[in-house]
Amino acid sequence: MHRVKTGIPGMDEILHGGIPERNVVLLSGGPGTGKSIFCQQFLFKGIEEYDEPGILIALEEHPVQIRINMEQFGWDVRKHEKEGKFAIVDAFTSGIGSAAKREKYIVRDPNDEMELIDVMKEAIEEIGAKRVGIDSVTTLYLNKPMMARKTVFLLKKVLAGLGCTALFVSQISVGERGFGGPGVEHAVDGIIKLDLDEIDGELKRSLIVWKMRGTSHSMRRHPFEITNKGIIVHSDKVLKM
Amino acid sequence: MHRVKTGIPGMDEILHGGIPERNVVLLSGGPGTGKSIFCQQFLFKGIEEYDEPGILIALEEHPVQIRINMEQFGWDVRKHEKEGKFAIVDAFTSGIGSAAKREKYIVRDPNDEMELIDVMKEAIEEIGAKRVGIDSVTTLYLNKPMMARKTVFLLKKVLAGLGCTALFVSQISVGERGFGGPGVEHAVDGIIKLDLDEIDGELKRSLIVWKMRGTSHSMRRHPFEITNKGIIVHSDKVLKM
Amino acid sequence: MHRVKTGIPGMDEILHGGIPERNVVLLSGGPGTGKSIFCQQFLFKGIEEYDEPGILIALEEHPVQIRINMEQFGWDVRKHEKEGKFAIVDAFTSGIGSAAKREKYIVRDPNDEMELIDVMKEAIEEIGAKRVGIDSVTTLYLNKPMMARKTVFLLKKVLAGLGCTALFVSQISVGERGFGGPGVEHAVDGIIKLDLDEIDGELKRSLIVWKMRGTSHSMRRHPFEITNKGIIVHSDKVLKM
Amino acid sequence: MHRVKTGIPGMDEILHGGIPERNVVLLSGGPGTGKSIFCQQFLFKGIEEYDEPGILIALEEHPVQIRINMEQFGWDVRKHEKEGKFAIVDAFTSGIGSAAKREKYIVRDPNDEMELIDVMKEAIEEIGAKRVGIDSVTTLYLNKPMMARKTVFLLKKVLAGLGCTALFVSQISVGERGFGGPGVEHAVDGIIKLDLDEIDGELKRSLIVWKMRGTSHSMRRHPFEITNKGIIVHSDKVLKM
Amino acid sequence: MHRVKTGIPGMDEILHGGIPERNVVLLSGGPGTGKSIFCQQFLFKGIEEYDEPGILIALEEHPVQIRINMEQFGWDVRKHEKEGKFAIVDAFTSGIGSAAKREKYIVRDPNDEMELIDVMKEAIEEIGAKRVGIDSVTTLYLNKPMMARKTVFLLKKVLAGLGCTALFVSQISVGERGFGGPGVEHAVDGIIKLDLDEIDGELKRSLIVWKMRGTSHSMRRHPFEITNKGIIVHSDKVLKM
Amino acid sequence: MHRVKTGIPGMDEILHGGIPERNVVLLSGGPGTGKSIFCQQFLFKGIEEYDEPGILIALEEHPVQIRINMEQFGWDVRKHEKEGKFAIVDAFTSGIGSAAKREKYIVRDPNDEMELIDVMKEAIEEIGAKRVGIDSVTTLYLNKPMMARKTVFLLKKVLAGLGCTALFVSQISVGERGFGGPGVEHAVDGIIKLDLDEIDGELKRSLIVWKMRGTSHSMRRHPFEITNKGIIVHSDKVLKM
Repeated sequence: MHRVKTGIPGMDEILHGGIPERNVVLLSGGPGTGKSIFCQQFLFKGIEEYDEPGILIALEEHPVQIRINMEQFGWDVRKHEKEGKFAIVDAFTSGIGSAAKREKYIVRDPNDEMELIDVMKEAIEEIGAKRVGIDSVTTLYLNKPMMARKTVFLLKKVLAGLGCTALFVSQISVGERGFGGPGVEHAVDGIIKLDLDEIDGELKRSLIVWKMRGTSHSMRRHPFEITNKGIIVHSDKVLKM
Repeated sequence: MHRVKTGIPGMDEILHGGIPERNVVLLSGGPGTGKSIFCQQFLFKGIEEYDEPGILIALEEHPVQIRINMEQFGWDVRKHEKEGKFAIVDAFTSGIGSAAKREKYIVRDPNDEMELIDVMKEAIEEIGAKRVGIDSVTTLYLNKPMMARKTVFLLKKVLAGLGCTALFVSQISVGERGFGGPGVEHAVDGIIKLDLDEIDGELKRSLIVWKMRGTSHSMRRHPFEITNKGIIVHSDKVLKM
Repeated sequence: MHRVKTGIPGMDEILHGGIPERNVVLLSGGPGTGKSIFCQQFLFKGIEEYDEPGILIALEEHPVQIRINMEQFGWDVRKHEKEGKFAIVDAFTSGIGSAAKREKYIVRDPNDEMELIDVMKEAIEEIGAKRVGIDSVTTLYLNKPMMARKTVFLLKKVLAGLGCTALFVSQISVGERGFGGPGVEHAVDGIIKLDLDEIDGELKRSLIVWKMRGTSHSMRRHPFEITNKGIIVHSDKVLKM
Repeated sequence: MHRVKTGIPGMDEILHGGIPERNVVLLSGGPGTGKSIFCQQFLFKGIEEYDEPGILIALEEHPVQIRINMEQFGWDVRKHEKEGKFAIVDAFTSGIGSAAKREKYIVRDPNDEMELIDVMKEAIEEIGAKRVGIDSVTTLYLNKPMMARKTVFLLKKVLAGLGCTALFVSQISVGERGFGGPGVEHAVDGIIKLDLDEIDGELKRSLIVWKMRGTSHSMRRHPFEITNKGIIVHSDKVLKM
Repeated sequence: MHRVKTGIPGMDEILHGGIPERNVVLLSGGPGTGKSIFCQQFLFKGIEEYDEPGILIALEEHPVQIRINMEQFGWDVRKHEKEGKFAIVDAFTSGIGSAAKREKYIVRDPNDEMELIDVMKEAIEEIGAKRVGIDSVTTLYLNKPMMARKTVFLLKKVLAGLGCTALFVSQISVGERGFGGPGVEHAVDGIIKLDLDEIDGELKRSLIVWKMRGTSHSMRRHPFEITNKGIIVHSDKVLKM
Repeated sequence: MHRVKTGIPGMDEILHGGIPERNVVLLSGGPGTGKSIFCQQFLFKGIEEYDEPGILIALEEHPVQIRINMEQFGWDVRKHEKEGKFAIVDAFTSGIGSAAKREKYIVRDPNDEMELIDVMKEAIEEIGAKRVGIDSVTTLYLNKPMMARKTVFLLKKVLAGLGCTALFVSQISVGERGFGGPGVEHAVDGIIKLDLDEIDGELKRSLIVWKMRGTSHSMRRHPFEITNKGIIVHSDKVLKM
């Protein structure tokens, strides 16, 4: 089986080699846990280190801001956009104003799943994308939780058909158990949980791979850091809580 | 009383010989606990080791993907499908596209319980199935919890009439108590709970037989592993939590 | 005051002689706690040991299956049915198919309380029943909790008028506090709670009499077992949790 | 200030002399805690020991059954009914059948607060009642919790106008905190809480006076027993939980 | 800044001199915690010790009963009513019967906020009130929680315009966290919480000042007593729970 | 990257230099935690120490009262208002009465987001504001929680376009986990949580920076005080809870 390397230091060791190809993985965490950074790093390292093009479906942030954020970690995505190896699908600005002029891939109505899927497919095919990040899937069913499972299955089916490996960012509340609702948790192929917990007056970051179809993986909770070069996971350390 | 051997190493010891024939057993667990693997192993081992044909009602995953998943554990189901000893009832793809051409047993509207039961009966009768897995029953009442009990009773009645022993996969949320709702828990003949718990920074797998009509059984929580040959239950060990 | 002996080993000691006649007792417990077995044993022992005929209102299980289940404990109810000392009121199959031909007492619409009461009265009068088991009352108000209290009061009034002592099986969820809802708990004359709890990786059975009008009773939690001859309560032991 | 003696052994010591006259006291507890017995004993002792007539508004139990229950504690209320010192207002049977013939005070529609108040006033005036027990007030607003406060205020106003001291039985669920809802707890003059708790495998009875307008009172939790002569409170003992 | 002395022994020490003038303070507590007594003592002591007239908006109790209650602590309010230094606004009896004849300030429809405010303003102006107690504000939004914040802001605006310092009694349930809902807690200038907690089988009274705009204050939980002369706060003691 | 100094003693050390420019930061806390003071101090110190004009959107308090409150800490905002360096946008009084005459920036209908944004933009542009405080955003979606995320995104977009750095005050309940709801927590660039907790009978103030885009920051919980000169954060101390 082919594996998709995350390129995030320490993470591929935890995954015993990487994410099995075509898996759809839920990247679940509360506010401030580093979900967006993890997702962006996965896409950028895919291009830089493994020559696997990728796209990011942006539902939470302006594409311009995403580029600025990524550059703060030294990830020059504009270069890869020009080379046709990276694309942002703008499902945030709803195609209004300056974004409509500058962005190539625009979803005008993010509540219209079919439009989102059409634009996503177009971007994947033009870029030849092997990796997809959706930040966040939660937005797609925030006010219609009954549709969560159906939405995730639909996206999964499309991405599997296109041969992509994907990270679905799932926003959960502080102190919430679970990973984003029962309909979603059981539908995905893998779950990586990012946590930020206060222990004795200090915030600690850690992650745990809860499930990953097609591979064994570390069953431990590992601490990680967010540095100015992105996330570093300590695959050799365990956080006991 | 005849017993149906699960064929899962360690499991039949825990069940004091196997599942009493015709019992409908809830296989309940959170995401990543191994419910689908347990269910597939039960069906495959039935054919291989006890010559008892079986069918799998697929509501969560594409039949093609299920075959791939089973082969990763060395369970060549295609052979048994050709021999007429195994069948997948496709209640996932809704009979669209290539699946409609390749799959023999198709449920076009999984919300139509009667169609599902008709196709299931047809498959059971043609195969001469003794074992049935439904993965998952939760999907059948996800958005209509008031109907859960009625659905389970209906399925149970049909399966009992056909002389089948069945596993009903029940998806529960992380941290949820219970096995899938009061209407369901009391309706089934047995409950096997699969758990995945973080203990001191490490994920631990265990299972417990909560009830099983017609037999005594181990009253203990046993650790188990998911290996590349499937599940192995440690019937001689107890996990204290 | 006359007392109705349960005939369950150890149970009458706990009740300081048995259930006061005409009491309606809630038999409350989660899945797998042995509620149905307790109820069936109460009815069977009534006939065998105290010559008190009884009826069972079956709402959860096919009458044929109930007979099989009881025979597994050595309780040959068919004999007593022929002698006119026991009857099953079939409120499960809704009078369809073979059950309609074989069963004498049939409730065609279990949602129609009045029909249920009429058939129950008919059976009680023909059999001369002194004991009644309803398995379960929960089913009667599963989807209409506002009606629970009214339903229980109605049944209680009818049964009191007929001079019967009754067990009302109440299904509760795992981890639920209480015995089946405030409207029900306060309406009944007695409450016996059956529990199944995991303690240090092992399931333990115990029961406690929470209230019983017209008698003192053990105020302790007693362990019990389900053997192949039915329930045995250890009235001389206490389970501390 | 005049005080109304409960006549329950130990209870008046706890109340530093009894309930201040005209107070409306919530008698709150879960199933099996002895609320009805406490209420009946308060009324019976009022007549026997203090020559204060009383009435009982029966909403949970048939008047015939209430008389039987009271006689089991040696409280011959029929005698006092004949003497015109005690009356039961039947708000339970809804005036149907034999009760309609035998009972003097009948509320035909317990959902009609005005009818209930009219019959209650009539009974109080004819008997010259000084004490009133309502068993239970919970029934009056079971399915309309928004009306609870209004109902309690209405009853309180009527009873104050008639110079009565009253116990309002409030049914709460096992494990529920509080005494019957915020609208009720703040509206009454006093709260006596009856508890039944499992401690180390044994049920323990205790009560605590949570508030009582117009008097100081014991601030401690006292154990009590239900004997065959009624309730005995151990005012010299404290239960620590 | 001018401060309004509560006149409650120990309380002004805790407030580092009293409540800053014009503050609206939430006086929050469960049943039996002494909220009404605190409020009445604040108003009475204002008149007696600081010559600051006050009014009490009565929403929970009959004005006649309030006068009786206050007299039990030796607070002769009738004298001050005659002198024009104290008034009760009757928003309880709805202006029916004898109250309509005897009371000067009557709110005929307590659900009509505008009428309540008009009558309150009239009373404040005629009396020259510097202190206002509303017992309770909870009643004003009991069945319309969405209106709580708006109601509190409206009252606050009116009272600030009139130069009054006010206590708003807030009824909370036993075991409820918070002080009466988020809309209310953030809207007021100060929060004083009264508590009644069972510790080792004994009820203990304590209070804590959670916030108070315009002044520092004790940050500690202080025990207090209700004596026959009213509340005494132990500003030199701390209750650790 | 340019940083906006809070000017609050100890706070900029915790933020490793200040808030990254253009960040929208949620300032989240329960009642009495000091959110409004923090927000006002941030704006006042911006003008005094860094010559960065600012505006305050007032949704919870009368502009006149806000000026009084600020002056109590020695912050003479009237001077800066006259100099055109500070402005209060009055979204509290709804433009009625004297406020309508005195205040320059008035939002007549605070439920009309568009009017609020228009007035805010006008004030920002006229003042040349670099800092914005909204006290509180919670008010904007108090009775329409489904709109919370959309409202926050809209404000964020407008403020980013104008180059402002902003504090959004978020009111949470005592004991509530989280920072103001999932839709809000994930939408903002930073979260600062203010806490007030009772520890051993004493209230303790502390804050923690939960996330801050574009900078590292202290991961610890720091105690702080509210003095008569405003907030002082102890960046060198840690509170363990």
